[in-house]
Amino acid sequence: MTKVAVFGAGSWGTTFAMVLAEAGSRTTLWGRRQEVADAINRDHANADYLPGVTLPDALRATTDPAEALDGADFVVLAVPSQTLRANLTGWRELIPPDAVLVSLMKGVEVGTTKRMSEVIREVAEVPEERVAVVSGPNLVPEIAARQPAATVVACTDLSVAERLQAICHLPPWFRPYTNPDVIGVELGGAVKNVIALAVGVSAGMGMGDNVSAMLITRGLAEISRLGAALGADAHTFAGLAGMGDLVATCTSPLSRNRTFGENLGRGMTLAEVVAATKQTAEGVKSCESVLELARKHDVEMPITEVVVGVVHDGMSPSEAGMLLMSRSPKPERYGV
Amino acid sequence: MTKVAVFGAGSWGTTFAMVLAEAGSRTTLWGRRQEVADAINRDHANADYLPGVTLPDALRATTDPAEALDGADFVVLAVPSQTLRANLTGWRELIPPDAVLVSLMKGVEVGTTKRMSEVIREVAEVPEERVAVVSGPNLVPEIAARQPAATVVACTDLSVAERLQAICHLPPWFRPYTNPDVIGVELGGAVKNVIALAVGVSAGMGMGDNVSAMLITRGLAEISRLGAALGADAHTFAGLAGMGDLVATCTSPLSRNRTFGENLGRGMTLAEVVAATKQTAEGVKSCESVLELARKHDVEMPITEVVVGVVHDGMSPSEAGMLLMSRSPKPERYGV
Repeated sequence: MTKVAVFGAGSWGTTFAMVLAEAGSRTTLWGRRQEVADAINRDHANADYLPGVTLPDALRATTDPAEALDGADFVVLAVPSQTLRANLTGWRELIPPDAVLVSLMKGVEVGTTKRMSEVIREVAEVPEERVAVVSGPNLVPEIAARQPAATVVACTDLSVAERLQAICHLPPWFRPYTNPDVIGVELGGAVKNVIALAVGVSAGMGMGDNVSAMLITRGLAEISRLGAALGADAHTFAGLAGMGDLVATCTSPLSRNRTFGENLGRGMTLAEVVAATKQTAEGVKSCESVLELARKHDVEMPITEVVVGVVHDGMSPSEAGMLLMSRSPKPERYGV
Repeated sequence: MTKVAVFGAGSWGTTFAMVLAEAGSRTTLWGRRQEVADAINRDHANADYLPGVTLPDALRATTDPAEALDGADFVVLAVPSQTLRANLTGWRELIPPDAVLVSLMKGVEVGTTKRMSEVIREVAEVPEERVAVVSGPNLVPEIAARQPAATVVACTDLSVAERLQAICHLPPWFRPYTNPDVIGVELGGAVKNVIALAVGVSAGMGMGDNVSAMLITRGLAEISRLGAALGADAHTFAGLAGMGDLVATCTSPLSRNRTFGENLGRGMTLAEVVAATKQTAEGVKSCESVLELARKHDVEMPITEVVVGVVHDGMSPSEAGMLLMSRSPKPERYGV
């Protein structure tokens, strides 16, 4: 029986652990807080993150990383992106030598502009064929409610991706597709939030579905240009981890980034929007590091540029719109 | 001054003629009905199709094809798809020998399964470098209300596409991108309605944004596989005429195809939905000819198949969902 350790008992870590356990792996969920682990073991519930959801009996939780990692074939990481380096440094001696490390995280490390799989390889000192990522249109409350969803499991070693696919495939509920393009799959997840801010701003200004579709499509084009510069496969961006996740995030009313943008588009000041926003909208932080990465690689990202302008440099939403629509006419495909 | 004839005074033909006239071309709009032409010339209005919209003074209308075509550099065709062959047969002798023919139409001819540009080339006996198509996320009421929109102008001769781009580029309102891939741009417009039916069915069943995003993305994957078999460029489907138009059509509450599907997903019978639908939902007709085209070329289109099953063969929506989610696990990219 395959043994899996999942690190991070937030909503996505817990939900993915539930999928793994129901698909037949012996799954142990590590969480920082004893009371969360106890509630999972005793009540099969994680009320803070997944209210109303009953977890499978077979899913065990622990606060002891050694217990979670003992004999693990896969180690799934779902901790906050900016804490990964410190957390993994504490766990790396305990990771079994052949275990595959799997990232569910969607950030870019502040300062280094490194993707999560790069941080994993660096800290755990593992080769790329032992690092996989999972990303796709996976709004967690819907998966936890057992609505169908599809995702992408990526590893440069396709046989490893297939092993991961096998342990998280749970028809007809959860459907994973394999892809060897780790860079593309990770970038799609990390940059989508910046585009969702732009879509939100335009919706807040009263723009319609043509503008949303244009921003989503041209947003994906600039993600693809960045991807091409970083060595990703352009086809990945036409897939679930690219356009799929982007469409879900940009059109869902549950998206924090879209909502943040909408408030800006309606004319609220940045300070007012920040005050009205309970949780962090990831794109607000990451738009600057994405633009930094783009400039390092000489890639044009006009939507990301105006998002940085509106969010951080006092540009008005209507000025941003004029800038985008007044660029010189172009062929549809350039830079990829 | 460039002279353009636009055939078809429906909502899209009239709106595109408005863009051309405002961008500086001498534009004549042909319509079948004298009272419509008179109202455009006298009142600058086309009340049936664009209520509340004031057309530019410079836009002239006529019911005489010879008058419209006299000296035309571009001939834009925006008549109902299934009437194109008969209409164009009546006009072909009047078309100036060097004029470029431009299709705004999004159908596939019933019986022949030919795309509109193929019908144009066959009937007007013109080479492919004189035929262009325009397609993208262009919900007409939004463009007529002068909200910003972007589109794709495609011709195998890129210099012709650039000439067309120049005459319909109207910053910051209307932004055309060029693309040499006529087949891909046309297929995107024609097949999107089938996928919108599927998205509607799932929304009607109460499924969430993960499922919509999955259907949109995997729908685009099957459009891309069909495109590859027909000689299209896979990159086109990641663009405005592919994912852009698909996203707009599948997520807009104004889409007739999505609404038709929603009613089926809620449990109405086909007869009840047809009775409740005022205008034809294009996908209901075209799903069968698209599937016919796919089978001719040995292309798997699982979403199109279940749409045909639900719309024409009495398959239940839940059976369709189970079928799609229970297919064998796959790599994300296959068949392209």
